[in-house]
Amino acid sequence: MTADEKYMKEAILQAKAAAEEDEVPVGAVIVCGNRVIAKGYNMSERLHDPTAHAEMIAITAATEALGGKYLNDCTLYVTVEPCPMCAAAMNWAQLGHLVYGAADPKRGYSLFSPSLLHPKTKVTSGVLTEECSGLISGFFNSKR
Amino acid sequence: MTADEKYMKEAILQAKAAAEEDEVPVGAVIVCGNRVIAKGYNMSERLHDPTAHAEMIAITAATEALGGKYLNDCTLYVTVEPCPMCAAAMNWAQLGHLVYGAADPKRGYSLFSPSLLHPKTKVTSGVLTEECSGLISGFFNSKR
Repeated sequence: MTADEKYMKEAILQAKAAAEEDEVPVGAVIVCGNRVIAKGYNMSERLHDPTAHAEMIAITAATEALGGKYLNDCTLYVTVEPCPMCAAAMNWAQLGHLVYGAADPKRGYSLFSPSLLHPKTKVTSGVLTEECSGLISGFFNSKR
Repeated sequence: MTADEKYMKEAILQAKAAAEEDEVPVGAVIVCGNRVIAKGYNMSERLHDPTAHAEMIAITAATEALGGKYLNDCTLYVTVEPCPMCAAAMNWAQLGHLVYGAADPKRGYSLFSPSLLHPKTKVTSGVLTEECSGLISGFFNSKR
């Protein structure tokens, strides 16, 4: 198992926690210096808050942990391609590296131009994609 | 004074509160049924949180006040054109109407395509523009 897969597994555990609360199962963790410094999962329904995405919760927790508003030396792992809100938040944070599992061809940030991410943010996609997308499709199939 | 100007004055008061805390002076209020249900001002520095923009704080407060994650019947007044993060948050909230004062030609949401806002969100710009942009330019001039 690669380091990316190891941390994506942690993000998947967060997504599963969301599913248990009947939230769209998206999970995120932020790693800095080989240590997970923040975690988050989607809480939009529980908090009645459209901004309470996994990534936003993790970014707020990470900046609080570091005591500064920049995440240049951090990697954010998230099970699904971020939406424009979350990508733009990563831009403000000058995130060092974004790693995501499943693409989101309907609402993903990569649909927009110019790029919503910070020019210095490295991007890796396709880590444990099947497991990440299976969580989402399983959730929506169970709703039908 | 029009209703838009009256509520923009309230957003300007929020921006002034930000300036007093040495934050970039942006303020927002959310109005529903002729009543201000939420207010916010930029707290990025104080909270070390790049997501703590005036609009995000106001959206979270408004959805909490209403007990639901949609703001279809609400108008958000903000002193400066929202950034992509805040515009995308308004999209998730299905905001009814956005009113802003000064344009932001460098970082405003309107630089991006397709539109980051929800297709049903009405937009009004140019309300008390000079006062709103004067707050920003005054702040940055004082830093030089």
